[in-house]
Amino acid sequence: MTLTRENCAALDARDPLAPLRGQFALDQVDRAGIIYLDGNSLGVLPKTAIARIREVVEREWGVGLIRSWNAAGWIDLSQRIGDKIAPLIGAGPGEVMVADSTSVNVFKALHAALAINPPSPRASAAQARTRILSERINFPTDLYIAETLARDRGLELVLVDRDALESHLDDRVAILMLTHANYQTGHLHDMEAVTSAAHRAGAVTIWDLAHSAGAVPVDLTTAGADFAVGCGYKYLNGGPGAAAFIWANPSHIARLDRDGFRQPLSGWLGHAAPFAFTPDYQPAPGMARFICGTPPVLSMAALECGVDTVLAAGDRGGMTAIREKSLALTDLFMTLLEDRCARVFTIVTPRDHKQRGSQVSIAFAEDLPSVAQGAMGDGYAIMQALIARGVIGDFRPPAILRFGFTPLYTRFVDVWDAVDRLADVMQANEWRDPKFSVRAAVT
Amino acid sequence: MTLTRENCAALDARDPLAPLRGQFALDQVDRAGIIYLDGNSLGVLPKTAIARIREVVEREWGVGLIRSWNAAGWIDLSQRIGDKIAPLIGAGPGEVMVADSTSVNVFKALHAALAINPPSPRASAAQARTRILSERINFPTDLYIAETLARDRGLELVLVDRDALESHLDDRVAILMLTHANYQTGHLHDMEAVTSAAHRAGAVTIWDLAHSAGAVPVDLTTAGADFAVGCGYKYLNGGPGAAAFIWANPSHIARLDRDGFRQPLSGWLGHAAPFAFTPDYQPAPGMARFICGTPPVLSMAALECGVDTVLAAGDRGGMTAIREKSLALTDLFMTLLEDRCARVFTIVTPRDHKQRGSQVSIAFAEDLPSVAQGAMGDGYAIMQALIARGVIGDFRPPAILRFGFTPLYTRFVDVWDAVDRLADVMQANEWRDPKFSVRAAVT
Repeated sequence: MTLTRENCAALDARDPLAPLRGQFALDQVDRAGIIYLDGNSLGVLPKTAIARIREVVEREWGVGLIRSWNAAGWIDLSQRIGDKIAPLIGAGPGEVMVADSTSVNVFKALHAALAINPPSPRASAAQARTRILSERINFPTDLYIAETLARDRGLELVLVDRDALESHLDDRVAILMLTHANYQTGHLHDMEAVTSAAHRAGAVTIWDLAHSAGAVPVDLTTAGADFAVGCGYKYLNGGPGAAAFIWANPSHIARLDRDGFRQPLSGWLGHAAPFAFTPDYQPAPGMARFICGTPPVLSMAALECGVDTVLAAGDRGGMTAIREKSLALTDLFMTLLEDRCARVFTIVTPRDHKQRGSQVSIAFAEDLPSVAQGAMGDGYAIMQALIARGVIGDFRPPAILRFGFTPLYTRFVDVWDAVDRLADVMQANEWRDPKFSVRAAVT
Repeated sequence: MTLTRENCAALDARDPLAPLRGQFALDQVDRAGIIYLDGNSLGVLPKTAIARIREVVEREWGVGLIRSWNAAGWIDLSQRIGDKIAPLIGAGPGEVMVADSTSVNVFKALHAALAINPPSPRASAAQARTRILSERINFPTDLYIAETLARDRGLELVLVDRDALESHLDDRVAILMLTHANYQTGHLHDMEAVTSAAHRAGAVTIWDLAHSAGAVPVDLTTAGADFAVGCGYKYLNGGPGAAAFIWANPSHIARLDRDGFRQPLSGWLGHAAPFAFTPDYQPAPGMARFICGTPPVLSMAALECGVDTVLAAGDRGGMTAIREKSLALTDLFMTLLEDRCARVFTIVTPRDHKQRGSQVSIAFAEDLPSVAQGAMGDGYAIMQALIARGVIGDFRPPAILRFGFTPLYTRFVDVWDAVDRLADVMQANEWRDPKFSVRAAVT
């Protein structure tokens, strides 16, 4: 049986999350016929953010001025938004702080992890626990931060393929740093199993939740994870460049407290008494020490609205319902793609639900031989042609076309229409128009 | 001759910068009878920011979505706003990057300074250049970041009083780190003279321009300064928690380039080719390597509007005119204070124009004996009582009442009215009302 657009419309009609699409300012996007499948790169605008940011700008900043640090609660934003993110990732109150960028939080988490699992040489040099282990295709910024830290601290960043991770978990590894759902392939790690394997090897884990927070149920506590960071502007819909978050296992927080741990970015808002203005640093108790400088209040306000859009699913099944719809959307996309573009594309993202985040990555099959030899594929031009047809995904070199599915606003008919237009682009060879090969700054 | 309010109104009438006050959304503030003398903590809202942020939220984020990274130039914000700040601080195009917070940029600058002036032990341990020298009352976050870095790198953070700085500039000092205009006292360093003294001693300088960028003419190039950082939300009017900036002397940039220097926060947007997504880090040439993660776009948009309000003074005398009015405002405040509150307050900020930023700090004279013995003074209650009268300054423990004067929007009559109300508060002993002693989170 071939699926029809009507089948998809029927799925939307009985989707319990469908009403939540009304939270987003998509009127103009819809009128323009745009299908947005890039919420894994930048989530769409919550309607509440429009009024909220106006309020922050015009009333809190404009009229309240400096008084708004207290009166409007700016000073609590890092904790308050952190506490809202916490239930989405299996964390408790006070365990999540929103601050800085993901990159900066990876840096803090690496330092904290090294404090918990110090890489001091042991009996012999061969036994020294001096490795940071990660995936070769982990998101580059995580790798870049770890690479420089490894150089500066005399450690070794070891990058391997996913399949080789477990065999590399030995007593040389201090930290296993992974992104829960891979940005490129959409491959999802089994957080609990991988964390257990890491612990058996004596390593601590840092999980980057950039592509899972708000999209995939995450339970850091049950998984026994050690540290986590995550991004505010993808599935949390926090707006461009929204601040990121950082979490540590409560047992580690207690130990960091006991040891008086200070992370290297020991700025004034992570001080135990920031407004005492004492010349010497005293870390704030608990996770607040991971705050550094003054947070970007306007961007923080947007992030809070974004997180609220995910929390709004709470009485409709919450993350479980989001996950169920996410899998249905990605299943549908794969099925339709095989119906309509059989053999044109290779589906890179695993079919197995347990191994999949909320995106589908595909590669243009003709690209693969040349890409294997180091060339850049035609996937870029295909994505540009598809965007010209109003379907927005993105391209990740050398060969990946990425499509992100945010269950809060992506409809089943959107999936149908997206594949329909992709099939047209391919059948009509639209993507061969040379204009689609011209690269923009951001791809 | 006693000055009158009419004298002050006359000064406003012939102030060439007076029309620039119209750039700011002060209608409600004025109607409420608020006199805002805290622009050194949070600058007021530029009118253009209201429309600009709406545009960024509703059109660029809401409709443009991911495409706005290119189409709306988000990807260039760090450089574009940096290039606007550059002429205000005597820097050239491409030399200033806007990114992260001041605290984070202090961290980057310290690392870069240590790369330029490596603290390797020399002939004898006594001669090792292992000191970071700063002022005991430098802004705490600068000290906190340096303190932790010194611990981590086996260096020594040496804090002395201003008068003792020169005598401590010896061959043990690697870095002299100072805030140009002190946050507490308003005391201004002679950047050129101090930089020369540091260089004679073989030290490199890091200048924090938080309280001078946009308020005091700064010429980093002429001063031969080495590194600088600064804050976006004070005299640059960039909004609460606006991103900060970082500068390095072009000669150092060339050397960092030559040496392949990587700062520890080597995030993906400081990569030579961020969108190539290669697993290994390659620093971007020049200052761009000081960018780390994705910038908070909404807050960046507000900052650009704020910087534009300062640039708007360009055809009215620019920073020279701003400085002239700043000195006239602070002179007037001191004169009126002595007229109206003689002996009640001690003026902490230097009378000498060359040693003064754009704020006046005063202490309640009765406080000083007890404060000298470690007690907290009554200055806090006095400031709260004054704020209740609509004059907003702030308090910095243990004894400082701070008043910031932003020449773009502070009028001479504002100064008259502020002192008038302060005199009333003191004469009527309003501040002794116990309610004014209750501390808020942010003071």
